[in-house]
Amino acid sequence: MQKYFNRIDLSGLDQRFRANLINSVGGFKSLCLIGTADKECQTNLAIFNSIVHLGATPPLMAFIVRPDTVERHTLNNILETGVYTVNHVSESFYQKAHQTSARYKKSQSEFNETGITAEWKADFHAPFAQQSSIQMGLEFRQRIDLLINQTVLIIGEIQHLFFPDNCLCTDGFLDIEKAGTITCSGLDSYHKTNRIQRLSYAKPDKLTLPVPLEYQKEG
Amino acid sequence: MQKYFNRIDLSGLDQRFRANLINSVGGFKSLCLIGTADKECQTNLAIFNSIVHLGATPPLMAFIVRPDTVERHTLNNILETGVYTVNHVSESFYQKAHQTSARYKKSQSEFNETGITAEWKADFHAPFAQQSSIQMGLEFRQRIDLLINQTVLIIGEIQHLFFPDNCLCTDGFLDIEKAGTITCSGLDSYHKTNRIQRLSYAKPDKLTLPVPLEYQKEG
Repeated sequence: MQKYFNRIDLSGLDQRFRANLINSVGGFKSLCLIGTADKECQTNLAIFNSIVHLGATPPLMAFIVRPDTVERHTLNNILETGVYTVNHVSESFYQKAHQTSARYKKSQSEFNETGITAEWKADFHAPFAQQSSIQMGLEFRQRIDLLINQTVLIIGEIQHLFFPDNCLCTDGFLDIEKAGTITCSGLDSYHKTNRIQRLSYAKPDKLTLPVPLEYQKEG
Repeated sequence: MQKYFNRIDLSGLDQRFRANLINSVGGFKSLCLIGTADKECQTNLAIFNSIVHLGATPPLMAFIVRPDTVERHTLNNILETGVYTVNHVSESFYQKAHQTSARYKKSQSEFNETGITAEWKADFHAPFAQQSSIQMGLEFRQRIDLLINQTVLIIGEIQHLFFPDNCLCTDGFLDIEKAGTITCSGLDSYHKTNRIQRLSYAKPDKLTLPVPLEYQKEG
């Protein structure tokens, strides 16, 4: 049976119920840990599910920071140092990743509190999550305040990219499922994936076909 | 073996290779069809993987429109009528959904060309995708031009929400996996999901635990 809520039904829901529901309807989401440090190298690690691809040339991604949350430590550090890391989450440490969302004090590092290992490399002033199979170092590019609900869009450019070389296909596609990356839905649900298929570039007068196997081979 | 690309390596890659790679590293993405119509009720349907949750009160979501793509028909219709639908994609019609990304002419409706059924309801001037188990009708709220790479962020507010009632849990979480929603990675890879676990709200001094089963029951 199909159920229907209109705008008035939605606004009449209990706040926590509505948060769970509206966070669910956006679909499956990118799940990443963002690592930062302040000028004194006090580290911070926070889980985000709002990473969005902006473009490949230059390689830009964006994410949303919500008002009055622990994520603000992340924002403050990014604005202070201009850099941050984005790290994929795997099944082997997703509970630790989730635990980074607790309201730790600024003096507590989520790395220490959750047991995720801070990895310093590439002469970069932000810590990577060692347990992550895919890690990126980004430079902050732009902050856009979304006045409609006091969220903030942060845009950064990829400067460093680490990944397992057996997951890179010959056409540039990175097999993140093979790398163990997981996804999430709602505020708290974690999911593994099973590939159905890669599909070839769609053209108006052709049927959509699977990507030829030769491109799906590892590079 | 871990492979490493720095910023210079990335800019030296073949354009298509880089597009595949950078589109992959953002993680798994929300996969939705956006339905629109112009003032003359000429319909359009386009696949997007950049939906992002902005907030629950009011219920806002955003997505990115890329420059010079077929997605521009979507943007033009939204600006013309002020409304659009967001529809989840299931395994049963993901090939049709992918096919909507072909460069059809403005006079061709992707509904007709791909065999996805336009559904008119809730007195709304935008078509829903009948095959979708989760459908939303949104009112346009704001356009933000991201000058850094000529993409556009579109913000809308949910006015209508349709979903299978056996997928709604007692705490408001909507089980989109049970509803058949799939996810995507890169530009062309489609994936089913398998839930690992829902985890309870994280607190600094407590271990993260699964969400109690009573909240996971259907409402």
